Amino acid sequence: MIKHNFSAGPSVLPKSVMEKASEAVLNFDNGLSILEISHRSKSFVDVMENARSLALELLGLEGKGYKALFLQGGASTQFLMVALNLLEKRAGYLNSGTWADKAIKEAKIYDDIYEVASSKNANYNYIPKGYDIPEDYDYFHCTSNNTIFGTQMKNFPKSPIPMVCDMSSDIFSRHIDYSQFDLIYAGAQKNMGPAGTTLVIIKEDILGKVSRKIPSMMDYKTHISKGSMFNTPPVFAVYTSMLTLEWLKNLGGVKAIEEANDKKSRLIYSEIDLNPLFKGYAVKEDRSMMNATFTLENENLKETFDAMCLEAGISGINGHRSVGGYRASMYNALSLDSVKALVEVMSELESKA
Amino acid sequence: MIKHNFSAGPSVLPKSVMEKASEAVLNFDNGLSILEISHRSKSFVDVMENARSLALELLGLEGKGYKALFLQGGASTQFLMVALNLLEKRAGYLNSGTWADKAIKEAKIYDDIYEVASSKNANYNYIPKGYDIPEDYDYFHCTSNNTIFGTQMKNFPKSPIPMVCDMSSDIFSRHIDYSQFDLIYAGAQKNMGPAGTTLVIIKEDILGKVSRKIPSMMDYKTHISKGSMFNTPPVFAVYTSMLTLEWLKNLGGVKAIEEANDKKSRLIYSEIDLNPLFKGYAVKEDRSMMNATFTLENENLKETFDAMCLEAGISGINGHRSVGGYRASMYNALSLDSVKALVEVMSELESKA
Repeated sequence: MIKHNFSAGPSVLPKSVMEKASEAVLNFDNGLSILEISHRSKSFVDVMENARSLALELLGLEGKGYKALFLQGGASTQFLMVALNLLEKRAGYLNSGTWADKAIKEAKIYDDIYEVASSKNANYNYIPKGYDIPEDYDYFHCTSNNTIFGTQMKNFPKSPIPMVCDMSSDIFSRHIDYSQFDLIYAGAQKNMGPAGTTLVIIKEDILGKVSRKIPSMMDYKTHISKGSMFNTPPVFAVYTSMLTLEWLKNLGGVKAIEEANDKKSRLIYSEIDLNPLFKGYAVKEDRSMMNATFTLENENLKETFDAMCLEAGISGINGHRSVGGYRASMYNALSLDSVKALVEVMSELESKA
Repeated sequence: MIKHNFSAGPSVLPKSVMEKASEAVLNFDNGLSILEISHRSKSFVDVMENARSLALELLGLEGKGYKALFLQGGASTQFLMVALNLLEKRAGYLNSGTWADKAIKEAKIYDDIYEVASSKNANYNYIPKGYDIPEDYDYFHCTSNNTIFGTQMKNFPKSPIPMVCDMSSDIFSRHIDYSQFDLIYAGAQKNMGPAGTTLVIIKEDILGKVSRKIPSMMDYKTHISKGSMFNTPPVFAVYTSMLTLEWLKNLGGVKAIEEANDKKSRLIYSEIDLNPLFKGYAVKEDRSMMNATFTLENENLKETFDAMCLEAGISGINGHRSVGGYRASMYNALSLDSVKALVEVMSELESKA
């Protein structure tokens, strides 16, 4: 049976990537497994360099003063590293969801944080707009896509100070001007690879401006100076991410994938809006192309709908506990056919009910 | 051709583990890959719990107040976390190698560090002994095995304060009383699994005694309270580590592997001592069972020896730049046959020369 994996992350990866990754576990370089080769071997150093340059190339950031790093610890560690490396006096954060809120909490350990705007009171069902970013702050931090709530920033403010963005759940999914950001970070496990590595894209000239002593592993400069190999990197996760980035490049890059993602999301939102049994969670103008959140108008249909989904090979659509209902995550590697399968079940439920 | 992988880490893993890991990348749970399942799925939660309890079981630490965590960031991040979580005023460190030295450097950011003893002046070719550990310090830190120099602590001091040990390169390799330690950490990529996760074993009652505010991701308590699932764990690295720990358990645990490791190391050290072309680097009483370091008495033979090794399928034996010569790393998964193959080449060189 064909599986339709709508998991919010870790999530579906391209089939060709899984096949190559599986083969590399048995034989990657001259009979040796990707799991047992030295990270200092030429074959892996090539993988790391290729992954780093593909990331910059796909985002249109080559030759623009950016460095790409593959680190460990997830976006949660970036909440901390951003503050340690950039926060001297005060920073402005946009509070658009649970992860943004966590980023604020971690940064507060180090210094003063100002919430430029928040949608917390509406349980984050929209993206705040029309706020000011004070120009004497150290940096402005935002979250481009809010996985849990299914909202996404369509436009970014003109920031007078360095702009930092958590793009964990929508990096590489659309064609925007990535050079408006000074630091981008993203856990791999949604659009880029398996869990276990975190991509950081950083404009070098924003570093070195804080007075605190930064521990080596938390210092972006350490990792930049060592080409993302200061200590043993997560070899397999970086390799699989490189495969996924190659897949995306061969597909036509972020422009091509945006078209595909747009089709998928228009299909599901149109079903949510037209089918009287379902209701979207996020306000329409802020709906995410990656995660569609919706609820059943009649909770009594839940058991039937869940059983029909299971029957159709659909998995991973349970909503996050803080929203309830359903969440269909449609990352780059999820096919249009999978969305069609889900929409079919939704519409079948309507004809049954 | 059979490969003999003496790499210092990432390093050889059991063949059966690689086969299972490779298969799981294609199909782990009901048609879904281990790379695309949710870390909150029952199947992965089971993996994590199994890996954590296997780690404690194999070290004989079950039911003794210890918790096992699978974190990210390598031992290098533990240098920092140990200090953040335990260092209030002063700590004592044994400086027995490059990694111990790095651990000291990172801890110094936070407070005063006292080197109880050091073998730095002898380029770490022995393990310092006969030092005192002041009882009013916060903790004592040591490194059980020094990968680069090929030295290993055979005995540990009776510590009047919590004892922290970096066991990255010899955990699970021998039968010792692991309950003499209050905190043990180890990067997976030598005896336990692929690069990308770090095992931390911690006695809970040593925590909560420092006054500083610890960032969530750096706080052992955060990870303990969330069962090592505070944020997305490195799923594949944890799964493969679990497979390796299962393999070890089926083999008979640390007692059985110690016997095998002892045979391997006695074989190579006897060749080093008997073959006039080679010379051991570490002092005899401190020789590591995991990493044998040695040099050629006559550098002119290097090219011939290297070519013969290549011919015999032997890889990964180049010494670290700070020692030179050769290093044969013989972690748990390396077979006695691989050591025999190396010793054969060494003895063949002697008969040729």
